Amino acid sequence: MRSYILINGQSEQSIPVTDRGLAYGHGLFETITLNGSQPVVWQAHLDRLRKGAGRLGIPLPVNIQALLEADLAKLLQLQPTSDTRQVLKITITRGCGGRGYAVDDKVSVNRIVQLTPFPDYPDQPAIKGVSVRLCQTRLALSPLLAGIKHLNRLEQVLARAEWDDSRIREGLVLDSEGFLVEGTMSNLFWVQDGELYTPQLDRCGVAGIIRQTILTLAEQTGVTVCEGLYAADTLAAADEVFVCNSVIAIWPVTRLIADQGCYPEWPVGPLTRLLQSRLAAEGIY
Amino acid sequence: MRSYILINGQSEQSIPVTDRGLAYGHGLFETITLNGSQPVVWQAHLDRLRKGAGRLGIPLPVNIQALLEADLAKLLQLQPTSDTRQVLKITITRGCGGRGYAVDDKVSVNRIVQLTPFPDYPDQPAIKGVSVRLCQTRLALSPLLAGIKHLNRLEQVLARAEWDDSRIREGLVLDSEGFLVEGTMSNLFWVQDGELYTPQLDRCGVAGIIRQTILTLAEQTGVTVCEGLYAADTLAAADEVFVCNSVIAIWPVTRLIADQGCYPEWPVGPLTRLLQSRLAAEGIY
Repeated sequence: MRSYILINGQSEQSIPVTDRGLAYGHGLFETITLNGSQPVVWQAHLDRLRKGAGRLGIPLPVNIQALLEADLAKLLQLQPTSDTRQVLKITITRGCGGRGYAVDDKVSVNRIVQLTPFPDYPDQPAIKGVSVRLCQTRLALSPLLAGIKHLNRLEQVLARAEWDDSRIREGLVLDSEGFLVEGTMSNLFWVQDGELYTPQLDRCGVAGIIRQTILTLAEQTGVTVCEGLYAADTLAAADEVFVCNSVIAIWPVTRLIADQGCYPEWPVGPLTRLLQSRLAAEGIY
Repeated sequence: MRSYILINGQSEQSIPVTDRGLAYGHGLFETITLNGSQPVVWQAHLDRLRKGAGRLGIPLPVNIQALLEADLAKLLQLQPTSDTRQVLKITITRGCGGRGYAVDDKVSVNRIVQLTPFPDYPDQPAIKGVSVRLCQTRLALSPLLAGIKHLNRLEQVLARAEWDDSRIREGLVLDSEGFLVEGTMSNLFWVQDGELYTPQLDRCGVAGIIRQTILTLAEQTGVTVCEGLYAADTLAAADEVFVCNSVIAIWPVTRLIADQGCYPEWPVGPLTRLLQSRLAAEGIY
């Protein structure tokens, strides 16, 4: 799979070894669906990028949006495609520094923009639903880093490495105190008695853009949403469960495989279908 | 400052953007003092690298030691120097993968070896001692990642960004429960009533090679060592305090600047001096 990459607007495939993104994970990323030439929920991705940059001391150029849109236009010229959708990945790092954690103010950020083919899911997980597992890997409580999409992702790597059965499409992870947080690559929702539930993400986890979009849609639809700290066995009483992210949109969860606890099989429920159709109407499907 | 770099044995300055070290921090590093052509406490660095690789699912080549030694020999040929000492940095990443946390087994690790000049400390911190501060940034409890020297170092970056007064040479960090862990780039010891104390590192922190060397030297010298969970104000009763790592060896701490708590000024004490001389005898100074 060839991917087309611009680094600071130039066609490049590689980045200096001295980049602080490699050395320390001092950077952020966004994974975005591109519909034609349009990044889906673009402003929300930019907002999260700005928020994360503030948190990590990364001085984004004031014209970051214009720079990224120019990169995207250039990539679309370099890589004409008949595909309706592609995946746009943006990585921003604190740039190339010397050895040591302190940042030299003169160092400018590095901006990496990649286009890759949209993944194909021939088994139609969005329609048929997926099996997920409950991971052993626990997320550390780190309020300072919670919510943002930074490059320190070892916990997700370790959680994802727990299984290699391709029939299991996602793993749910708990925090170190045993509360549900998210999937390794997605956010988690469930429905109980007509209300929508999702873990709060102020202690760990990534506040996904599609998660935020769903929260907004639910509000517009008059669905009550509860964000909180919930133990894994809360899911035993759920009527519907689903995971979401910017590429998969919503995948209904029909089965949870766990070493402990007993979970029912879930149907793909009506609120899940409603939210899928509302997302699709915004180009997220 | 020009640094000489080999990637997988080849002279290169940059690494593909798709490297999992950049994408997720899926990798490890070692910072080593090179005395002439000899990496100091080499076997201990290799051991930690192997342990970390096991923890992170990084399949090191069985001949990793020979590969690294060949890299080093090649770098020393490329970069002849009259400097007695240099800094050798080794970074091992899980290699170049696609998008997504799952690892493709066919992907081979990337091996990055760099030589940089040994830092010059004209103000003689090892002799005169240093001022350090108590950081606000707390380390998350992450037993899975504790002890190893992985590439997820945002907490250290954030802690180090708390000050820019060059007279403050290091910051001490506490874990999320308020226990002392280490410095941003060093390990922490103190002496009280003739006994040596250092924080345990099974919940967070990096188990430094010089820390381990000091523990061994203390044992050989008949000094009692206590590893445990200690609150910051434990230091108020310390007779001597010092920090250590592979490049600075031991820096005595003479002053701790903290928003809360009252700490005495410490002399550079006799056990600190003894350990410095023992380390120097092993080429660590």
